[in-house]
Amino acid sequence: MLNVIRPDGNGVSATDRGLAYGDGLFETIRMRGRQAVLRSYHLDRMVADAGRLGIPVERSDLDAEISRSGCDLASQYGDDWVLKLVLTRGSGGRGYRSPVECEPSLIVTSSLMPILPPPGGVVAALSKFPLTVNPRLAGIKTLNRLEQVMASREFSGEEFELIMANADGQLLEGTRTNLIIRMKGEWVTPPVESLAVAGVMRQFALECLRASGHTIREQIIQPALLSSPGLRGLYLVNSVMGIVAVRRLGSVDLPVDDGLETICDPLKTLE
Amino acid sequence: MLNVIRPDGNGVSATDRGLAYGDGLFETIRMRGRQAVLRSYHLDRMVADAGRLGIPVERSDLDAEISRSGCDLASQYGDDWVLKLVLTRGSGGRGYRSPVECEPSLIVTSSLMPILPPPGGVVAALSKFPLTVNPRLAGIKTLNRLEQVMASREFSGEEFELIMANADGQLLEGTRTNLIIRMKGEWVTPPVESLAVAGVMRQFALECLRASGHTIREQIIQPALLSSPGLRGLYLVNSVMGIVAVRRLGSVDLPVDDGLETICDPLKTLE
Repeated sequence: MLNVIRPDGNGVSATDRGLAYGDGLFETIRMRGRQAVLRSYHLDRMVADAGRLGIPVERSDLDAEISRSGCDLASQYGDDWVLKLVLTRGSGGRGYRSPVECEPSLIVTSSLMPILPPPGGVVAALSKFPLTVNPRLAGIKTLNRLEQVMASREFSGEEFELIMANADGQLLEGTRTNLIIRMKGEWVTPPVESLAVAGVMRQFALECLRASGHTIREQIIQPALLSSPGLRGLYLVNSVMGIVAVRRLGSVDLPVDDGLETICDPLKTLE
Repeated sequence: MLNVIRPDGNGVSATDRGLAYGDGLFETIRMRGRQAVLRSYHLDRMVADAGRLGIPVERSDLDAEISRSGCDLASQYGDDWVLKLVLTRGSGGRGYRSPVECEPSLIVTSSLMPILPPPGGVVAALSKFPLTVNPRLAGIKTLNRLEQVMASREFSGEEFELIMANADGQLLEGTRTNLIIRMKGEWVTPPVESLAVAGVMRQFALECLRASGHTIREQIIQPALLSSPGLRGLYLVNSVMGIVAVRRLGSVDLPVDDGLETICDPLKTLE
């Protein structure tokens, strides 16, 4: 039985495991009026990853909640707003041990769209905060996001995004975005098993690229790749803002084009 | 300004960052009536680690809350009970980015003492779930405890504790305990910088050992150490249950004595 907590109701129990341990996961969904952009991608991911964590949930319950929230909340916003679903293992169990009978919490919140950057590309920098990825949790948008919080303390005002590396210095992802790199002749992105969060927009963009006949290589990114003469562009992607090109990384200017945006527009999926 | 949420009040805000990202830390304190065992150790650790996370808190506010909770809650329990303090960065901020003006939440809950094992040592097993430690967060009892939750799903009924290893197979700690190993002539424990959680009881036990003239070596534990002929005992320690000896790890019987309990009794600090 899903315990739904909506914005107008009571708060979250002080014993909810989502608070106590980050025992849960979330989806951040771009909304257009009552419609959810990339809806099936978000639903599929939440159900699959809840399964990996052993949190029982029905796709139909999540789907119904998106519809209900769309109806209830859309009038508060203009056309574009953001719906967030947090699914936790609920309360109970002894310490870290899961309760035998699990009553998950689904906490629904909403917010304005963030300010999208102007065209022409953004400035990014490398974070000094290392990113660790547990191979058993790779790719899952769990509530354990303290590393992204700590990296985000480095924002100084100029950067649109901070890019995080693992202990070996390999580039993995931004604090809130995935990386897709255009090289001469192919596109490169780190593989899911290396990532903290495997984004829905990353998945959609790769599908668009493949459908358009482009070659994709999923491989770990060495920083040197971004100084390579074959580099054609570095893109940051997430489902709220879509695709943003990086015009400068640290002190290095990068080539910019709108190639990926041309190939891949998630808003078209609403038609 | 600290926003204190007590057991009899409203719940936690749906936008609290402790829920959204595990953006916070906690202390689990053994209580004897109104008294907190190892009180100054818990206070010192929470203040120091809140500082590492950049969450502003006054030691005096935490101290006052322990006293208040001791008075309010002790009568519900027998002599022995458990007080839990959860400190989060509160609500606010854009996404992972911290709010400029931070209003931390302090969430207070309590529970019965867990059932302590009978003397003679317990059975433990090695967890299959790897433990990753971000070097910048090493030792901190943050709210990002999903790995301990996932490892704990392996409890099958017989084991008192599951011991977690890193990706290299080196033994780090139990899901809810630290490891102290007695060898012929010295005591061995993994160093703080290798740990997910550096426990208060671990610290107290090491201080007792040093004060009694024992030699301590802080080093990474290779599993082979536990089959070594020099092994005299494997102890699991945490501040709620104190010290527990392991009589069997997986299929391997281990020597058991009450040496560490003799050297080190946190309840004596209440006198």
